[in-house]
Amino acid sequence: MTRRDFINSTGASYASLLAWGFLQPAPASAFNLPPNGRRDDGKARRVVVLGAGLAGMAAAYELGKLGYDCTVLEARSRSGGRVWTVRGGTKETEKGSDAQTCRFEEGLYFNGGAARIPHHHQLTLQYCRELGVPLEIFNGANEAAYLYNDGGTGELANRRMRIKEYHNDMRGYTSELLAKALDQSALDQQLTKEDVEKLIDFLKNEGDLNTSHLYKGTNRRGYKTKAEPGAGPVAGELTDPYGLTDLLRSGFMQPVFYNVGDYVYEQQTTLLQPVGGMDAIPKALEKKLTGKIVFNAPVTELRKTENGVRVVYQKDGKPTELTAEFCVCTLPLPVLKNIESDLSGTVKRAADFVPYIKTGKIGLQFKRRFWEEDDHIYGGISRTNMDINQIWYPSFGFMGRKGVLIGYYNFYSRAEAVGAMPITEREKLALTQGSKIHPQYPAEFDNSFSLAWHRIPFSEGGWATYDDATRKKFYPSLLEPDGNIYLAGEHTTYLTAWMAGAFTSARRAVEAIHARVGEYTKK
Amino acid sequence: MTRRDFINSTGASYASLLAWGFLQPAPASAFNLPPNGRRDDGKARRVVVLGAGLAGMAAAYELGKLGYDCTVLEARSRSGGRVWTVRGGTKETEKGSDAQTCRFEEGLYFNGGAARIPHHHQLTLQYCRELGVPLEIFNGANEAAYLYNDGGTGELANRRMRIKEYHNDMRGYTSELLAKALDQSALDQQLTKEDVEKLIDFLKNEGDLNTSHLYKGTNRRGYKTKAEPGAGPVAGELTDPYGLTDLLRSGFMQPVFYNVGDYVYEQQTTLLQPVGGMDAIPKALEKKLTGKIVFNAPVTELRKTENGVRVVYQKDGKPTELTAEFCVCTLPLPVLKNIESDLSGTVKRAADFVPYIKTGKIGLQFKRRFWEEDDHIYGGISRTNMDINQIWYPSFGFMGRKGVLIGYYNFYSRAEAVGAMPITEREKLALTQGSKIHPQYPAEFDNSFSLAWHRIPFSEGGWATYDDATRKKFYPSLLEPDGNIYLAGEHTTYLTAWMAGAFTSARRAVEAIHARVGEYTKK
Repeated sequence: MTRRDFINSTGASYASLLAWGFLQPAPASAFNLPPNGRRDDGKARRVVVLGAGLAGMAAAYELGKLGYDCTVLEARSRSGGRVWTVRGGTKETEKGSDAQTCRFEEGLYFNGGAARIPHHHQLTLQYCRELGVPLEIFNGANEAAYLYNDGGTGELANRRMRIKEYHNDMRGYTSELLAKALDQSALDQQLTKEDVEKLIDFLKNEGDLNTSHLYKGTNRRGYKTKAEPGAGPVAGELTDPYGLTDLLRSGFMQPVFYNVGDYVYEQQTTLLQPVGGMDAIPKALEKKLTGKIVFNAPVTELRKTENGVRVVYQKDGKPTELTAEFCVCTLPLPVLKNIESDLSGTVKRAADFVPYIKTGKIGLQFKRRFWEEDDHIYGGISRTNMDINQIWYPSFGFMGRKGVLIGYYNFYSRAEAVGAMPITEREKLALTQGSKIHPQYPAEFDNSFSLAWHRIPFSEGGWATYDDATRKKFYPSLLEPDGNIYLAGEHTTYLTAWMAGAFTSARRAVEAIHARVGEYTKK
Repeated sequence: MTRRDFINSTGASYASLLAWGFLQPAPASAFNLPPNGRRDDGKARRVVVLGAGLAGMAAAYELGKLGYDCTVLEARSRSGGRVWTVRGGTKETEKGSDAQTCRFEEGLYFNGGAARIPHHHQLTLQYCRELGVPLEIFNGANEAAYLYNDGGTGELANRRMRIKEYHNDMRGYTSELLAKALDQSALDQQLTKEDVEKLIDFLKNEGDLNTSHLYKGTNRRGYKTKAEPGAGPVAGELTDPYGLTDLLRSGFMQPVFYNVGDYVYEQQTTLLQPVGGMDAIPKALEKKLTGKIVFNAPVTELRKTENGVRVVYQKDGKPTELTAEFCVCTLPLPVLKNIESDLSGTVKRAADFVPYIKTGKIGLQFKRRFWEEDDHIYGGISRTNMDINQIWYPSFGFMGRKGVLIGYYNFYSRAEAVGAMPITEREKLALTQGSKIHPQYPAEFDNSFSLAWHRIPFSEGGWATYDDATRKKFYPSLLEPDGNIYLAGEHTTYLTAWMAGAFTSARRAVEAIHARVGEYTKK
């Protein structure tokens, strides 16, 4: 059987396509299953979808292809949920905070929620292809960005260094130490003499060691600016490496400084982003669902009925009812737990106990893209152990006049503390701490827009953060239908936090509903 | 003195700006020097520039700002020289080869020469800013691209592997070995017990070691496709690491497989490229020189006169003469050596003996972007020890219908051998060898366009490749004016092969001419 035969075979389920690594050119209809979302009387089966985020819209879109009649209820006046791009004019009022209206210049923006697509998230990429969302590179790992260790001791305390300096020095010293151990035959390893020679060859290159197998610095960490190699009579002068013990003792062994771009599977090169902002994806889905989404319609009750479900939502300040045969509920668990429902006790306990991350971002508009002009940083991420945690530089609009960078991206207790501050204090903190890495901040600052997902109505958290215990105890119940109610959303997958989680969960719910209807039809 | 004061001070030369790391917002006129390119009689001083590549055009552009009257003689019918983007309709006939006309689809292209801009090439970036050339990320280091070792022995011979597998396995094993040496106190290093603990922390993260400090694989190298982590009841299953001795013995210790994206200063992240093709830069410069460039005008003689220079060039089949006070000669040395001239013996010997690299590329158009759809490769480079050497995937136009990748990029004897083949044989070689990495090649291939720089008229080489001896013997003479003739081009810098070399050399020549004229004025 060829690949194409396999894909075209009607028995190929989403799960098996995934299993075979075949999530590719958009299927004409979801999973290539025959549409049969109609009842014996020829009417379409009705499905109510709660939430017009990616999971809800993808579910409605795929169910629509199969002949189901979907209505999507969305509490906000916009689609996308946590896939949200902040631009000039964007408004938000967090619980307990002042209202904000974004004042960024035309063309400048940052992605407040989802912000990158790993190259191996095949389903997300497939939806971009199918929906015609153009993509560009998201520069995740930039060797020119900075690390800043606040505190620590020694030469390298309280200062910034380029990531390339840290990486190459640590690789140099560790390669030197291992070469030394191998030279001394200090390791009772199973390697032959020839293997050791080859490994030392590798180390000489990995660490840029000299002929005596010592690390004495490398041009990989850059040249002294005073002798930039160029048109002059001599080549550039190398910079001096930092000391190994200085590096070890300065605090740079903290996890925040790890080589995330290499280490984390989801953050390895290559990462992608939609041109013009991540909300290009929900906007494209929304277009496929014209007339199917009811906005400003927060759900207050979710009931099981004899033949399906009954949902109560607020519309123009009045409770309104909707009945359907099935419900796909994509509400985040912190929102779901405050809704009156007939959900099973297991699901209700999951909603109460599955933890969600507290997380925040701030977009800072500057009058000048000094990070590009002065520091030669084009995209990528600087990392620090301060409350701001990360600074993200935009991977688009290079060399424009003004620019917006993400001044903090933080998590857990840091996000909680910063999120609890008044809006103006968040800005002050971002500027004060960020100035330690970029002294240009005070002179160049324009305005800001900040957010704390755990304080934003209808989200109330960043994403589900299972530990082993909650994964074991609560996760399986979220995968099973609860009567005619099917849960979806990143929290119902192992791809928590990722758009891929929303999409895979939508597919799973659609497939489960469709299989059940198939059973009816057989009877 | 603040940065801005420094930049604004009229005494700041290009060299000192470079030295201070200040190559930034475009100067109103070159180097902020007062224009004085006029003679006592008020007439502009005349300069003839040989070659409308980046060096020649940048020199003419800057001299023009200073009041000089420049004429640029260009042998080809186009500007840009080795900054050349190949698209549908592009024609070239190499010495001894059949004529080629490119048949790529609208919107598809590859950069035949210069193809990436390092983030630290400040002057190139400054010109892009000044000329309004929009940039995007060039994805140089893609962990998802492949390595293919042709030959070798053992499990890993004659097969492709993802770069992420190689990187993470080698880092894992080397970290394990060093941790072992440190655990055994096998190294008489100067590290304290606390330093060793911190270093082992680093190694545990660098190599993703387990609690016993052993490398047993890592999710960084990916998951088994059969258990892609997703919406199901279990998380993904890890892939198994390759064996250390398999890796060492398979041939993967050859330089071609080194981690170039990390190792080579000029190829580290972040790299950039102009949107729409590298020739956006020469096209923008050409626009600034309207009426100043004479195309189809190959130079045949370069003479010194009492008051300057006399140049003879072919125009419409007839020798034509041009006189000027100064000449900026940017012709590549293999071209210069065949021109009748009054150049000094030292410069003539340099033209004879400075070696130029032989190098070739082929653009392959495919009916489908299978490297994206099937392999999840969005930009980046695969590397092999076969004659094709490298495969470059485009960093633009993701998920389009068709696509052009660079099917080989080779150097030295490989480039010589492949370049000597008939055009159709080059294509065959690229397809045969490339198929070992991408079995989709034969089914998806459309058409090709290949080039060998050492065979292309008016270039006759890739770039100058000095060794220590030629650098010492010939380089200094290229920096000095030879009478009123000033040399420029990448071969007159330490930034050989880079557009930054062309630009810095142009600046140096302009500054030297301008300083000399300033001396006249003082007299």
